[in-house]
Amino acid sequence: MKKKYVIGIDFGTLSGRATVVDTESGDEVGGAVYEYPHGVMDKTLPCGRELPDKFALEHPADYLEVLKNVIPMALSDAGVSADEVAALGIDFTACTLLPVFEDGTPLCFAEKYKSEPHAYVKLWKHHASQPDADRITEIAKERGESFLRRYGGKISSEWAFPKILQILREAPEVYDDTYRFMEAADWVSLMLTGVETHSATFAGCKAMWDAEEGYPSADFFGALDERMRNIIGTKVSDKISPIATAAGYINERGSELCGLPVGTALSVPLPDAHVALPALGIVSPGEMMVILGTSSCQMIHSAEVSEIPGICGYVRDGIVPGYYTYEAGQSCVGDTFDRFVKNFVPKSYFEEAEREGINIHALLRRKAKDEGVGKSGLLCLDWFNGNRSILVDDDLSGMLLGVTLNTTPEQIYRCLIEGAAFGCRRIIDNFTEHGVAIDSICACGGIARKDEMMMQIYADVTGREIKIAGTLQAPALASAIYAAIAAGIFKTVEEGSARIAKPCYKIYTPSWENHKLYDRIYAEYKRLYDYFGRGENNVMKVLSSMK
Amino acid sequence: MKKKYVIGIDFGTLSGRATVVDTESGDEVGGAVYEYPHGVMDKTLPCGRELPDKFALEHPADYLEVLKNVIPMALSDAGVSADEVAALGIDFTACTLLPVFEDGTPLCFAEKYKSEPHAYVKLWKHHASQPDADRITEIAKERGESFLRRYGGKISSEWAFPKILQILREAPEVYDDTYRFMEAADWVSLMLTGVETHSATFAGCKAMWDAEEGYPSADFFGALDERMRNIIGTKVSDKISPIATAAGYINERGSELCGLPVGTALSVPLPDAHVALPALGIVSPGEMMVILGTSSCQMIHSAEVSEIPGICGYVRDGIVPGYYTYEAGQSCVGDTFDRFVKNFVPKSYFEEAEREGINIHALLRRKAKDEGVGKSGLLCLDWFNGNRSILVDDDLSGMLLGVTLNTTPEQIYRCLIEGAAFGCRRIIDNFTEHGVAIDSICACGGIARKDEMMMQIYADVTGREIKIAGTLQAPALASAIYAAIAAGIFKTVEEGSARIAKPCYKIYTPSWENHKLYDRIYAEYKRLYDYFGRGENNVMKVLSSMK
Repeated sequence: MKKKYVIGIDFGTLSGRATVVDTESGDEVGGAVYEYPHGVMDKTLPCGRELPDKFALEHPADYLEVLKNVIPMALSDAGVSADEVAALGIDFTACTLLPVFEDGTPLCFAEKYKSEPHAYVKLWKHHASQPDADRITEIAKERGESFLRRYGGKISSEWAFPKILQILREAPEVYDDTYRFMEAADWVSLMLTGVETHSATFAGCKAMWDAEEGYPSADFFGALDERMRNIIGTKVSDKISPIATAAGYINERGSELCGLPVGTALSVPLPDAHVALPALGIVSPGEMMVILGTSSCQMIHSAEVSEIPGICGYVRDGIVPGYYTYEAGQSCVGDTFDRFVKNFVPKSYFEEAEREGINIHALLRRKAKDEGVGKSGLLCLDWFNGNRSILVDDDLSGMLLGVTLNTTPEQIYRCLIEGAAFGCRRIIDNFTEHGVAIDSICACGGIARKDEMMMQIYADVTGREIKIAGTLQAPALASAIYAAIAAGIFKTVEEGSARIAKPCYKIYTPSWENHKLYDRIYAEYKRLYDYFGRGENNVMKVLSSMK
Repeated sequence: MKKKYVIGIDFGTLSGRATVVDTESGDEVGGAVYEYPHGVMDKTLPCGRELPDKFALEHPADYLEVLKNVIPMALSDAGVSADEVAALGIDFTACTLLPVFEDGTPLCFAEKYKSEPHAYVKLWKHHASQPDADRITEIAKERGESFLRRYGGKISSEWAFPKILQILREAPEVYDDTYRFMEAADWVSLMLTGVETHSATFAGCKAMWDAEEGYPSADFFGALDERMRNIIGTKVSDKISPIATAAGYINERGSELCGLPVGTALSVPLPDAHVALPALGIVSPGEMMVILGTSSCQMIHSAEVSEIPGICGYVRDGIVPGYYTYEAGQSCVGDTFDRFVKNFVPKSYFEEAEREGINIHALLRRKAKDEGVGKSGLLCLDWFNGNRSILVDDDLSGMLLGVTLNTTPEQIYRCLIEGAAFGCRRIIDNFTEHGVAIDSICACGGIARKDEMMMQIYADVTGREIKIAGTLQAPALASAIYAAIAAGIFKTVEEGSARIAKPCYKIYTPSWENHKLYDRIYAEYKRLYDYFGRGENNVMKVLSSMK
């Protein structure tokens, strides 16, 4: 039987999403989604234990459930049999990290650790490691560590070593009992193939590793904590796997788990944001990708290294061999709207939406659309989950200004969208101010496809055309591209992208009248951004420290 | 029949509230409330015409409806006949102003003006006259007008002449057709007695009049607008009526209206905030009254004149002959909570409240109570309806900071309460910093009586004991005191107060642990207060100007 199909699975924040791709036609022929049974655990563990503030955990068993369910579902949807599948590729949120025993079993599976928060997966948006991130930045600065320049001068609490340092500090027994700290992506890869990998892109973006410089030195880790001196090569693997290769081949245990035949190739996993670029046809410099999901990422390739403050990191050969890929991001976008709708929109709005047979977000957007630019008098700082770029500071928090007794939910909803757009513009400006040219912008993710008002606001705020990606499943689709490369069907990322990427869905053109108005509001945004974000007024940190 | 009863009517923002008092026992023997049929008109006129932003109008017919209904209702509740009533006293929100024809008919009663917003009553919280207030302050400063010092250096948009200037500017025909601009209180007095009065306390607090200096000069008004040069003595009466006297006696028309006999004395009306002091037994310096209603007032007597920035004005002999009474205020308190509950609290909270058989505010308070001081990380500037004291600026707006994805409605509710308490502390500090000693604080109004959590927060934030007034109807009760004086039953305000005022209901003692925590947050509040409120960052004004 000819193996012309590949499967890509995107492990997101709340679910795993698979797509089945025909490598000959380039078409997506089927797909499926499976939600994590435990979802994001940010209040309690399954045993009922309450979690401290800023914890965001996941249950590794959920990822196995995805494998068990979503592959058969997707194949059935596509009408394709498991035997016709040449390879599987996966991508994952990052840094999403868990401690495992020597046999790969997560610590949280052990009876001893069932009620220990630090034994679970720390999701990318676990922000309780901010003090540890601060310490890493501080010590690295003191020691003049060269890796800092790759991360815009600041280490984020979302990355691997702050998370590990928090475990060491708060749960030293967990640290001691851990054989490896693994990216969830690498752990899933291990579960399927029995082979341990450490994807170069995860290591480069989230674990301070560089192809030329390697990891920071033992002296650096020793300066952080003597117990961490020899962490590299022991609790953190130093065997780095290059991307666009096979991580391994599905073994018996993996086959039992996911239903694909033993020997099916699995490509080296990639972070969900990075991986998407080739699925949009972005395989060379000049075009920025903006992913709009629960959070937002901005990514762009570059032929050269530039030092850009406040980026989330760059990695050479991380997506397309030969290029550096820069990442910047906003810690919440879709999450912001969801929480607002859940907690701060009154019953009457839900009733109106139901009467009209539309989604509550659609109702709010429709109401908000009629508000002209600046008509509400509102302005927000979109730091409701901290600031990832360009301030890299999770102790910052959201601010809303201009509120009156007459402020309506739809006005705040629009203001939140505008805040996200201002945050994105600030990141774009930061790139161009530091020598990375941006010729065009392509937005992807469900919000980009569905929310016309929001994308028009992005165009109006940035004063740039916004192209909307031709696929709704960019990460899963791109994982399928890398799967096809691992199986030898395509030779290069460029070839895979040319064959699989879809033409853009739609283009939003800025209104210059609105852009001029937004320029005035953006000037105020920038001033508040600097005032609250760069230490002139540390009220957000003072309040955060009192929690 | 012995006339030992008096009636006080408090014309509030949404209703008229009457109390019947037995002057011999000092007891309130009955009462009634009647809501204004039109309520506050801030969106549309009765004809459907839409109102501009920041308009807040009322319909004068509603006040007559109150007289017609609330007096018989209160008498019936008390089991007292109209013949047993010695006198009536009224108090009113201020400055609440309307234009009338020579016969006293409001312009808005005329067919010609039914759809003209400027022909209606401008309620105290009509804030669309801010540009006019700014102009009056500016011209007064340029000319070195001495009256400015009585108002903390700044004229509020809530007062009489900004409202009149706005009418002249936006509806000159209304201005031309107006025989008198009257306080609603004086107009109701005219409707009952046929005698025109202009209560000294309204004139002093809201119309830049002073017992010694009189009104500003014709040259000043001419500098504002040549058409206003001769406004005093024509469109604004210069016959000022001293308080604690009879304004007149109910005539036939008045008797038909309210059911009290012809000849019943009516005392000179007083503003609703000022009037309350004697009902709490505050007839000399040292004790501050804090009224907590839709908005908030802080009032205190003083034997001397001090120049205090940002107060709402003072008036000699305005409440107790011989003393100056200072007024400061916050433009929204109860309003803030009501709007928040109406627009930003989700269905599940209302369902929970219903299940437990409690009010939604009670539910939010109970949930918020469990949050310790500073535990939410939130802080707000309570300027959701502008800032009355001490910045006197209606172009300022509310700000909320420290918001995260985990912020809950009860956390914001508590933060709004804390914001009101910080605003109150800022006003207290402003008085003491400028030489007005405050020995004790007495809070009155429905919120003070009912909201234990809020009053404890006020005690904790201010670090002072908060006494709660013995009456829930302080303004109406005080109006009854002045009625009794007008009827000759009491000789002085002090005597009336001693006979009628009730002992305090309860005392809240500060927790010093909480006070120390609040001190830290208040320091941040003050810094933001100055930053946004005193011109260092005018973002609120910039955004407001774009509306």
